[in-house]
Amino acid sequence: MRKEKISSAVIRRLPRYYRHLDDLYRGGTVRISSSALAKSMGLTASQIRQDLSCFGGFGQQGYGYNVERLRGEVAEILGMNRNHTLVILGAGNLGRALIENFPFAANGFRLVAAFDVNPELVGAPLGGVPVLHMDELEDFLADCSASVGVLTVPARVAVESAQRLAACGVAGIWNFTNMELPESELSGVRVENVHFADSLLTLSYMISEEPV
Amino acid sequence: MRKEKISSAVIRRLPRYYRHLDDLYRGGTVRISSSALAKSMGLTASQIRQDLSCFGGFGQQGYGYNVERLRGEVAEILGMNRNHTLVILGAGNLGRALIENFPFAANGFRLVAAFDVNPELVGAPLGGVPVLHMDELEDFLADCSASVGVLTVPARVAVESAQRLAACGVAGIWNFTNMELPESELSGVRVENVHFADSLLTLSYMISEEPV
Repeated sequence: MRKEKISSAVIRRLPRYYRHLDDLYRGGTVRISSSALAKSMGLTASQIRQDLSCFGGFGQQGYGYNVERLRGEVAEILGMNRNHTLVILGAGNLGRALIENFPFAANGFRLVAAFDVNPELVGAPLGGVPVLHMDELEDFLADCSASVGVLTVPARVAVESAQRLAACGVAGIWNFTNMELPESELSGVRVENVHFADSLLTLSYMISEEPV
Repeated sequence: MRKEKISSAVIRRLPRYYRHLDDLYRGGTVRISSSALAKSMGLTASQIRQDLSCFGGFGQQGYGYNVERLRGEVAEILGMNRNHTLVILGAGNLGRALIENFPFAANGFRLVAAFDVNPELVGAPLGGVPVLHMDELEDFLADCSASVGVLTVPARVAVESAQRLAACGVAGIWNFTNMELPESELSGVRVENVHFADSLLTLSYMISEEPV
């Protein structure tokens, strides 16, 4: 595996490859040609071959790709077999939506706890996960370290919450607050932002292409 | 404005430009140099100049960009002044998070109604918006057309819900269901996907770069 050579554009496409390969695998497909995979993903076969060659490329001329093997390889590169753990800060609507509906385990993560300041939420488990008070964050993470902290807190406490997570030694922050976090002050923590507004504005552009 | 020449990569960056320019505008900044804007956005000045030149580029040598004017121009290109309207299908946790917390108006959209099948949710307005039964979708949209339908329904009804929205004539679908929609069957409707899993797996990759 030559991971160090994978460009960030390819990395951004890898989760999508994983989704498609996982669907194929679950549907019982054993092998697939680059052109068939390309068609189902709306890419070109040469793009697929180029992307997959970045990490060894298991395609064989006249055979195509072994779906299970390629799926496993992509999962490995994405770090889905590292036993990553995760805590969620903020058990409001969005936090709850993730806790109750997001398939963390299928993505290689184990959700260990949620934190909130609302006394009505603290103490009552959600989706099998304890909801603790934010005051307990440092003690909890001292006992039970987490790879990732998910930020679904209100924007006004986003930066402070991120700093507390960084001080507790998380490796990554999954940021839903729509605030830009000061990465230089977060001691090497990797930040991945989910900006709903950026996505909606892209759609807005697409449906506004005709002049007024 | 030479919109037709804007590449999709630039389009994807425009919402982020808008966010930064809006922050600057609200903070009272009148003008900014490409290098200062670049620094605040983690890009290079030449990247900024190249991106902004795609749509007329209002920078002046020795002056920089007029923040209010550039913000307005980016908003215009993104279609933020088109009086877009929007309905939400699915008023569960995620739908509710959007209805109650997402700043639709600040992004140029007016949320007109939400739809669900749960009798406990139907009838009780959320965030000032009526929650109607899914059975009423077609009648409602016949009277009051919407530019965009937001899909926050369970995955198993995602495709069927998208087809109903397309039949009602929406221009775009903002898809949170993690299902790939059959765009070829959606009669020209533009689809923008928010794939939480793709984002988490990208973070997973970033925190897994060291070999096991």
